[in-house]
Amino acid sequence: MAAATGDPGLSKLQFAPFSSALDVGFWHELTQRKLNEYRLDEAPKDIKGYYYNGDSAGLPARLTLEFSAFDMSAPTPAHCCPAIGTLFNTNTLEAFKAADKKLLLEQAADEIWEAVKSGAALENPVLLNKFLLLTFADLKKYHFYYWFCFPALCLPESLPLIQGPVGLDQRFSPKQITIGVYDPCNLAQHPGWPLRNLLVLAAHRWSSSFQSVEVLCFRDRTMQGVRDIAHSIVFEVKLPEMAFSPDCPKAVGWEKNQKGGMGPRMVNLSECMDPKRLAESSVDLNLKLMCWRLVPTLDLDKVVSVKCLLLGAGTLGCNVARTLMGWGVRHITFVDNANISYSNPVRQPLYEFEDCLAGGKPKALAAAERLQKIFPGVNARGFNMSIPMPGHPVNFSSVTLEQARKDVEHLEQLIESHDVVFLLMDTRESRWLPAVIAASKRKLVINAALGFDTFVVMRHGLKKPKQQGAGDLCPGHLVAPADLLGSSLFANIPGYKLGCYFCNDVVAPGDSTRDRTLDQQCTVSRPGLAMIAGALAVELMVSVLQHPDGGYAIASSSDDRMNEPPTSLGLVPHQIRGFLSRFDNVLPVSLAFDKCTACSSKVLDQYEREGFNFLAKVFNSSHSFLEDLTGLTLLHQETQAAEIWDMSDDETV
Amino acid sequence: MAAATGDPGLSKLQFAPFSSALDVGFWHELTQRKLNEYRLDEAPKDIKGYYYNGDSAGLPARLTLEFSAFDMSAPTPAHCCPAIGTLFNTNTLEAFKAADKKLLLEQAADEIWEAVKSGAALENPVLLNKFLLLTFADLKKYHFYYWFCFPALCLPESLPLIQGPVGLDQRFSPKQITIGVYDPCNLAQHPGWPLRNLLVLAAHRWSSSFQSVEVLCFRDRTMQGVRDIAHSIVFEVKLPEMAFSPDCPKAVGWEKNQKGGMGPRMVNLSECMDPKRLAESSVDLNLKLMCWRLVPTLDLDKVVSVKCLLLGAGTLGCNVARTLMGWGVRHITFVDNANISYSNPVRQPLYEFEDCLAGGKPKALAAAERLQKIFPGVNARGFNMSIPMPGHPVNFSSVTLEQARKDVEHLEQLIESHDVVFLLMDTRESRWLPAVIAASKRKLVINAALGFDTFVVMRHGLKKPKQQGAGDLCPGHLVAPADLLGSSLFANIPGYKLGCYFCNDVVAPGDSTRDRTLDQQCTVSRPGLAMIAGALAVELMVSVLQHPDGGYAIASSSDDRMNEPPTSLGLVPHQIRGFLSRFDNVLPVSLAFDKCTACSSKVLDQYEREGFNFLAKVFNSSHSFLEDLTGLTLLHQETQAAEIWDMSDDETV
Repeated sequence: MAAATGDPGLSKLQFAPFSSALDVGFWHELTQRKLNEYRLDEAPKDIKGYYYNGDSAGLPARLTLEFSAFDMSAPTPAHCCPAIGTLFNTNTLEAFKAADKKLLLEQAADEIWEAVKSGAALENPVLLNKFLLLTFADLKKYHFYYWFCFPALCLPESLPLIQGPVGLDQRFSPKQITIGVYDPCNLAQHPGWPLRNLLVLAAHRWSSSFQSVEVLCFRDRTMQGVRDIAHSIVFEVKLPEMAFSPDCPKAVGWEKNQKGGMGPRMVNLSECMDPKRLAESSVDLNLKLMCWRLVPTLDLDKVVSVKCLLLGAGTLGCNVARTLMGWGVRHITFVDNANISYSNPVRQPLYEFEDCLAGGKPKALAAAERLQKIFPGVNARGFNMSIPMPGHPVNFSSVTLEQARKDVEHLEQLIESHDVVFLLMDTRESRWLPAVIAASKRKLVINAALGFDTFVVMRHGLKKPKQQGAGDLCPGHLVAPADLLGSSLFANIPGYKLGCYFCNDVVAPGDSTRDRTLDQQCTVSRPGLAMIAGALAVELMVSVLQHPDGGYAIASSSDDRMNEPPTSLGLVPHQIRGFLSRFDNVLPVSLAFDKCTACSSKVLDQYEREGFNFLAKVFNSSHSFLEDLTGLTLLHQETQAAEIWDMSDDETV
Repeated sequence: MAAATGDPGLSKLQFAPFSSALDVGFWHELTQRKLNEYRLDEAPKDIKGYYYNGDSAGLPARLTLEFSAFDMSAPTPAHCCPAIGTLFNTNTLEAFKAADKKLLLEQAADEIWEAVKSGAALENPVLLNKFLLLTFADLKKYHFYYWFCFPALCLPESLPLIQGPVGLDQRFSPKQITIGVYDPCNLAQHPGWPLRNLLVLAAHRWSSSFQSVEVLCFRDRTMQGVRDIAHSIVFEVKLPEMAFSPDCPKAVGWEKNQKGGMGPRMVNLSECMDPKRLAESSVDLNLKLMCWRLVPTLDLDKVVSVKCLLLGAGTLGCNVARTLMGWGVRHITFVDNANISYSNPVRQPLYEFEDCLAGGKPKALAAAERLQKIFPGVNARGFNMSIPMPGHPVNFSSVTLEQARKDVEHLEQLIESHDVVFLLMDTRESRWLPAVIAASKRKLVINAALGFDTFVVMRHGLKKPKQQGAGDLCPGHLVAPADLLGSSLFANIPGYKLGCYFCNDVVAPGDSTRDRTLDQQCTVSRPGLAMIAGALAVELMVSVLQHPDGGYAIASSSDDRMNEPPTSLGLVPHQIRGFLSRFDNVLPVSLAFDKCTACSSKVLDQYEREGFNFLAKVFNSSHSFLEDLTGLTLLHQETQAAEIWDMSDDETV
């Protein structure tokens, strides 16, 4: 290029190469496509760039790729010229490095050559301006490695300049013209890259008829707002003899890197991207990775979009929330009425020492705050409120009664506005009210409870949808499957026949905290237990959500472990009972109990008919109220009668 | 008391009751005793208080209990008078409320009466000043409920004052005295409580001989530094007739509460105690509670005092550290060379969004900082360093070689100075060097590794102690049990015969990160998996530590689940392999492999002989170096030869 002079007889035509110009939007869009569409697919992709012929002096001839590069039907910006390219995005840095650059260039050159030979390029000169883009996107670090190629077929010999380049004004009257190119270059003595393959086309086509060709490099530059043809250049070159030659000529075109050497470039976008947006896409990354290779049928949306209500923000609540965050769940609401105490932070992984000072922050609020600190994209809320309980009277005064009414209403609203209700409290009786409301509202309930080194994690049975009014349609996600033919009592139990936490009990819940010693109040457990149970509670929810029947899915049992699993993630048990001393889990299945103090129709009917009035009776009464209602009292009497009868029977024998 | 006048003929003697004065140190010490000694024991305990007879006017007569109250041999402060008491500490607030205060007082009165009758109180007047202290310590909230009683036997009738009280100076010359009491009261007209039972003693003993007795209430008050007998008072009272009467008189003595009513007091120390000290004792609370009822034989010290080195501060490292904190482990050290990225906080529970900004904090340092924030009492450190790996050459330059040498030395020091080494990295080859060093140093290694929905958690076999020099004694915790008679290949395998992470492999570790696609690099796994595996890794460590043989304990297998467990916490498996899709764990046991690339004697001998020179060869070499050394190469050849032979054998048949 340095040797170029105005001497028409001696100098050789030299070309200004393209410089790649990749917008941040391009990398954003590549990230999205990689995550959502390409995944592990390394096949070449069509992309589209453009260049402009009106840049100011001093700017390189740039081929620009924006976020729109992946949309082949996207319009090219005004006054710009499109360039069609091929993206080779590799999965690893090693594949990027190992890519056969020579071969890729040869293949592209062949295509151009075919377009030259066939005449397609005459019809559509865009075919001459192909480009290649080899990339590796390190989406963990937001480092993007790339190497551009603008394949240019080489003429058999360099082109002697017969005349020019001179400004267009010195050569043409406004009416005169020969062969033109839209030229992105703004050097006075040199044309840009697009001319190269055009000249090959010209030589191939016309070198038998013409010895030389006059070239007009059209540049649309304005100077102080005025278009001036003086910016465009014109020259005449001697065409080499290659008329209709069949073999593809040698080609060049890989771009130099920032240091001027032959090599790829790298752009590190991790600092200039919006951190919160970065966090969001990073969090999604791990999840989407699961789909790429391991569980292609995983329906992530079902998980990410689920709204979870966590009743209890203690050891279990914190661990459940952490696991939900890991699954990308964005809507998490806590309910708790305790403050954070000094013993909590080492076992409740959303709290720190500072949270314990001055009496301790309310757990529900602190937990929600912490989730925001972990991941600003989460929608977390906390409510510092009590859940009224059977056997804990609320009728001391009109004030306490009104407070209980408000608490019930608030809890009903919360359960209504969430999809899954987690019962993570530390007493049995505090689980009763939400179990009743959730059963009535047909919400999926996941229940977790700890012993010292044992735990139970279970989904409550999900009742069949209520009778619909004439005009109502049953919402899709609540359709219960038809009863299964031949289902025995202990296998193939569909979700709507499964029991709840209270179904196995023959005593109604009451005040269990009175008169408990310290070790009982603290629900002392091995420290690892809550992490395991909390994690399993969420994994159970996710597996159930993946099942096409959701909460109505037939319960898997331990015996199903050797069978084909019902979901892409595996089994959907009713209960997981864990024994840490044996490092063992079993998967029992149990039926709903028609005298259950929480989910039997007797209780649900009363609740739906009488609302708070019924609930208040339960709160204010001893065990016997619920036991009378459900028929447990009668059952007790019958059992006793049976025992008496058995004894007398023995005596008569 | 209001009716008291100087009129000797009419007025009755009245007494100033004690006020209890409980120092914060007393409650601290009660907390400690409750946690470590009393636990659920509600039996009465001897305690000791004191009172002083030199207080300024206006101060009540106080009976003081300090931290030393529980030590019956502790000296009484100078010039003070001891009082012996009985502590009744209940386990529940209900028991506190329900305590039979009348009965307790009667029992104490009987004892005093016995001492009066027997003459023991004459020998030791301290027996007259008994006190009772009924307490309930709510150690979750640091609320302490208490009620004092200073039992005073009542005389049959009130005591008419014959003379006085007047100041001692008005009555005595320095040489004259009758019967005296060390009097904590500073009212000019009234004696303090200790006189009451002394007068009962006097009436019982001497009312047959004397109608009246002269009483000197000695008070050691100083005024402007000058002792003055004017503060002490003297009076004469008429003794009622009760000479040698056998029946215990009526008694009074329960203290009034702050409101002046008959009732207990409560002190809330949660705000005035040092928060960090509060946090420490609170954290210990849950742990100690485990011992009280559930696992009385649990040796907590073995767990709390263990020094843990966590290699890897990612998903597993964070969860392991959290569980260790829950177990009260105080010494935790992290090693990692990565920075926190945006995708980490939702799965790595020691990091938050803020930690990811500006390129991300180094994980090891941030993790240690977070542990301090969770619990200031922890001794947490982090080292941002790389662990050299087989197949990752370090001989590019003298600089890289020296760095590797330093890294190895540092790792050796760290492993030497810790008791348990956790391998929590995300590549196989990074586990090799610490596995070799820890095997050589006979440290317990706990290894955890994740798949997509599977995990392995295992303890490495712990080699027998090295040959001891003539004068050396084998340290107690490293004594290997004698070989078991009749142990088969698959049962009763002692710890020193167990395999390590590399024992099942027939290929040496090498560079496994090259050419991995993104989903492989991220070690994509179900979000709950790391919590479960991290928790189990710690629980496995704790169970092993509880076994009398520690790392040499015979490995439990799945078959042992129905047998009597070897420790108070249950089984001590070699490996826990978990399958989340089936919610199942199995407990395989495998033997050490004599050609293992990490723990075989060939490797350990070379490492111990050549040190870094040997290691550098491994780092710089391909697989074959370790495979040649251990004999794996030969094994491969023999296997191939065997296969060829098998084929020809087939052909001849």
